[in-house]
Amino acid sequence: MKALVNLQVVPMGTGVSVSKYVAACEQVLAEAGLHYVLHANGTNIEGEWDTVFAAVHRCHEVVHEMGAPRVQTFISVGTRVDKEQSLQDKIDSVSRVRND
Amino acid sequence: MKALVNLQVVPMGTGVSVSKYVAACEQVLAEAGLHYVLHANGTNIEGEWDTVFAAVHRCHEVVHEMGAPRVQTFISVGTRVDKEQSLQDKIDSVSRVRND
Amino acid sequence: MKALVNLQVVPMGTGVSVSKYVAACEQVLAEAGLHYVLHANGTNIEGEWDTVFAAVHRCHEVVHEMGAPRVQTFISVGTRVDKEQSLQDKIDSVSRVRND
Amino acid sequence: MKALVNLQVVPMGTGVSVSKYVAACEQVLAEAGLHYVLHANGTNIEGEWDTVFAAVHRCHEVVHEMGAPRVQTFISVGTRVDKEQSLQDKIDSVSRVRND
Repeated sequence: MKALVNLQVVPMGTGVSVSKYVAACEQVLAEAGLHYVLHANGTNIEGEWDTVFAAVHRCHEVVHEMGAPRVQTFISVGTRVDKEQSLQDKIDSVSRVRND
Repeated sequence: MKALVNLQVVPMGTGVSVSKYVAACEQVLAEAGLHYVLHANGTNIEGEWDTVFAAVHRCHEVVHEMGAPRVQTFISVGTRVDKEQSLQDKIDSVSRVRND
Repeated sequence: MKALVNLQVVPMGTGVSVSKYVAACEQVLAEAGLHYVLHANGTNIEGEWDTVFAAVHRCHEVVHEMGAPRVQTFISVGTRVDKEQSLQDKIDSVSRVRND
Repeated sequence: MKALVNLQVVPMGTGVSVSKYVAACEQVLAEAGLHYVLHANGTNIEGEWDTVFAAVHRCHEVVHEMGAPRVQTFISVGTRVDKEQSLQDKIDSVSRVRND
């Protein structure tokens, strides 16, 4: 099943900056061959469910290995069986309504 | 890696009531042998990462099979490497502070 | 408008323990006269939209005052116009399906 | 207090398409004078806490007025007192790490 996911990883018990952890998770997503788009409050990911969640699991491991003792992650995941939809399709469909 | 998860499944393109879908996902969690606790805005789950997320995947499949064309799910997942912690430990640790 | 909310506050740039911050936010909710129920991954809150979100705002201020330089909070908020529903109603409606 | 927010509105008890509701909420944000950026899984918003959450409240009202009997919304909100940060700053800080 294809999943469209928003991933926001919050390292705890470490400094205030999260950018190095976000960049490390991006690297994990790239190595998994996933399509992803960074935004200001997370990373949107498109891919097969199992591939996506194996990468999110690996991301937690990496953030722990980088020194964060605790990680709290927020995931929004959408699946649908009525039609195929990509991350870009979702943005395009709002643009169409907006310009009606 | 052990994960403490809050799962909130939102079926879309169907009626307003979500209780039958929540009950079906509980059944999936029970069959996976996971420890879970229902609350008013989701279900808390405790277990090995892969077991938990395989069950969440299966829950999406079941909700689609029950007729929901689209499912949007919100997951909060915490992992930590500094100590073992259960769902109950998290509640107990707030209680201790509260009663200081 | 009445809102049913799940609130999960994650202090950043501080230690791994969040219990004292959660207890302080509970105190804010109590002072606002809101009905709330702690669970393992957050606090469920029931009340008028504006009262709830004013309390969440105050909770951020308090957590900063306690020393957390950064706070990331996850909120799930539900409203409905078809019927009145309490936090307990949501749990009861799953129980009814479960026991059918 | 300035807040950086991700907003994902999920109308329930209505059709599968959410684009018209997302576009209506964008209109609310624009009328509130807020800076916002649509992405595939929500809308990022930057502004004063009270202005942002008054707009989110108004968005719920509008989505109900458009016919959705139930709305479930997911919000990630970050505040910090150590430095000023914009939505773009967050993206830029990951880019800098990525290109090191």
